[in-house]
Amino acid sequence: MLDFELIRQAQARLKGHHIVTPLLEYEPINEMLGGRVLFKAEILQKTGSFKFRGAFNKIAALAPDIRTRGVVTYSSGNHAQGVAAAARHFGIAATVVMPSTAPLLKRQNTERLGAKLVLYDIKTGDRKAIAEAISVETGATIIAPYDDEMVMAGQGTIGLEIAEQLEQFPKSVKRFSDKNCGEKQTVETQISDSIESHDLLLAPIGGGGLMAGVSTALRHLMPDMQLYCVEPEGFDDTKHSLERGERVANQGHASSLCDAIITPTPGELTFPINLRTLTGGFAVDDASVMRATRVLFEVAKLVVEPGGAVGLAALLDNKLALQGRSAVIILSGGNLDLSSFISMCQAQQSDPAPP
Amino acid sequence: MLDFELIRQAQARLKGHHIVTPLLEYEPINEMLGGRVLFKAEILQKTGSFKFRGAFNKIAALAPDIRTRGVVTYSSGNHAQGVAAAARHFGIAATVVMPSTAPLLKRQNTERLGAKLVLYDIKTGDRKAIAEAISVETGATIIAPYDDEMVMAGQGTIGLEIAEQLEQFPKSVKRFSDKNCGEKQTVETQISDSIESHDLLLAPIGGGGLMAGVSTALRHLMPDMQLYCVEPEGFDDTKHSLERGERVANQGHASSLCDAIITPTPGELTFPINLRTLTGGFAVDDASVMRATRVLFEVAKLVVEPGGAVGLAALLDNKLALQGRSAVIILSGGNLDLSSFISMCQAQQSDPAPP
Repeated sequence: MLDFELIRQAQARLKGHHIVTPLLEYEPINEMLGGRVLFKAEILQKTGSFKFRGAFNKIAALAPDIRTRGVVTYSSGNHAQGVAAAARHFGIAATVVMPSTAPLLKRQNTERLGAKLVLYDIKTGDRKAIAEAISVETGATIIAPYDDEMVMAGQGTIGLEIAEQLEQFPKSVKRFSDKNCGEKQTVETQISDSIESHDLLLAPIGGGGLMAGVSTALRHLMPDMQLYCVEPEGFDDTKHSLERGERVANQGHASSLCDAIITPTPGELTFPINLRTLTGGFAVDDASVMRATRVLFEVAKLVVEPGGAVGLAALLDNKLALQGRSAVIILSGGNLDLSSFISMCQAQQSDPAPP
Repeated sequence: MLDFELIRQAQARLKGHHIVTPLLEYEPINEMLGGRVLFKAEILQKTGSFKFRGAFNKIAALAPDIRTRGVVTYSSGNHAQGVAAAARHFGIAATVVMPSTAPLLKRQNTERLGAKLVLYDIKTGDRKAIAEAISVETGATIIAPYDDEMVMAGQGTIGLEIAEQLEQFPKSVKRFSDKNCGEKQTVETQISDSIESHDLLLAPIGGGGLMAGVSTALRHLMPDMQLYCVEPEGFDDTKHSLERGERVANQGHASSLCDAIITPTPGELTFPINLRTLTGGFAVDDASVMRATRVLFEVAKLVVEPGGAVGLAALLDNKLALQGRSAVIILSGGNLDLSSFISMCQAQQSDPAPP
């Protein structure tokens, strides 16, 4: 059972081996949204995404004689890199079953970390079955991308860090009158007296492991915080599932820039947790995601992959009003090769520039 | 006189008003260079560059009756934004004399921060004279970009933070045998026993204010550290001046991507300090700078403007061998609009990809 204690144990295992990523604030983004946004920059995590945490925790918790037989996983990329890096840390073999269409940077990075790649055709192959066959043959342990409580507990350490880091943030934020109104005026607005004033959190969701871990930690530490997951339009299976109270699959064949968080259905183990802990979900389109990516580039100076930027996309797209409130946004990953980034930007060039 | 005490005072003034930017490490970059690199990410500073520190310290130290008359400065962009943001903090007027060729993002950001822009033609105008005339007319205090000890002291707080943050870094770093050699081996290499093992620092230099402040702080706290400044080829006036022991000007009419650090000569006040404190200087060409910018994008997930990336460019270009040593690199600024970034990347497309 995933619970708070399991996340605390994960934190102890990770200590000294991962990066305690910073919580970053940008006044121009606050002004753009009329509230306060704090970004948990998991793009700065080892391997460029939060996935390292869950993979490390899972592998660290294996019995040594099991661990020595290696690990195998299936992933579109970020989890693959997390597993490869964690396996390398322990000096064990890692095999990764990856779609042949996965972004080049993710494939290269996984190989550079010493993992063996097994590519499959996303239309005809069954990645889980391929991984299971490898596990049976070699004795390697399967590191599931999200439906595993040790993986969820690892991701949940982000929630512990957010709660700790929020305590160190000043509880007030400066607001300024419009620059064109002549005389400048400084207005100190008291955003809150207590940590509960950090009103909401937005994070990307694919299979739901990040959200299950983070929400379990935050429901314990900050029970009044509203917790929202964000998905790409057409792949908003979690949003629909939360509304229906049961797991439903995506319909049809949409396309999305957000390769990292495209999943057919919510996870079997993650969904019951998220159904209990989450406030709701939003779906964002590619144009909003691209706009968020551009704001993060130009204002935040951060490289965030489309799937990692959906939280900000939801706010820029007014899915909920931030006015006077405070939000934490998890930037979950930044693995995007430069040529893909440039192609994306050019495809959206006709869009209006961010304000 | 700029001394350690003045930098300590600046730190007290800045406390709670600036961002203590993180020191970031990336294993793939360490492996690429065969040593250890820690990036001081001043791109995450308020206004996207270190310049906020010096401007804030200078304005904070003014007598209230002087400060109320406002400030005026001349800058190609980053210092302008720093001054505008600091002036806004104190609710005073700021005027910025800026070349009409300055990057769009820097102009827009300065205006958004409430400053009044006075554009001039870089070929015919004298920015300092224009600022002095405004100062005489309005009583506004000139905030020089670098030749001012309070500005240097503000930038010097980066040095204090680096020394503090280095103490919290583990003193050993893992190395791995080549991934293709079959059996994986984990070799723990003791990089150092003491803080002096952080062997060197590389930072961009334009007028020299950043380096004068940082080197004054670090000479005091870490006397054995080698301190190098890095400039664009053709604008390597500091390198030549350090070699000659006196201030010399750039020759001819070179061009460079590094708009933020193009200066005709080292500063009058900064140079004597840097002559005493610096170990040496390097010059890098546009291709190396672009390569560094790409590595920072793809591996570090950071948006760094060309002038801010020269420290890494020097290492990638083997200006000095890092092998087995540890370097701190200051990433001084990240103010680069997306369209300029894309143009830059495309102009260098024929270059080989980073390893």
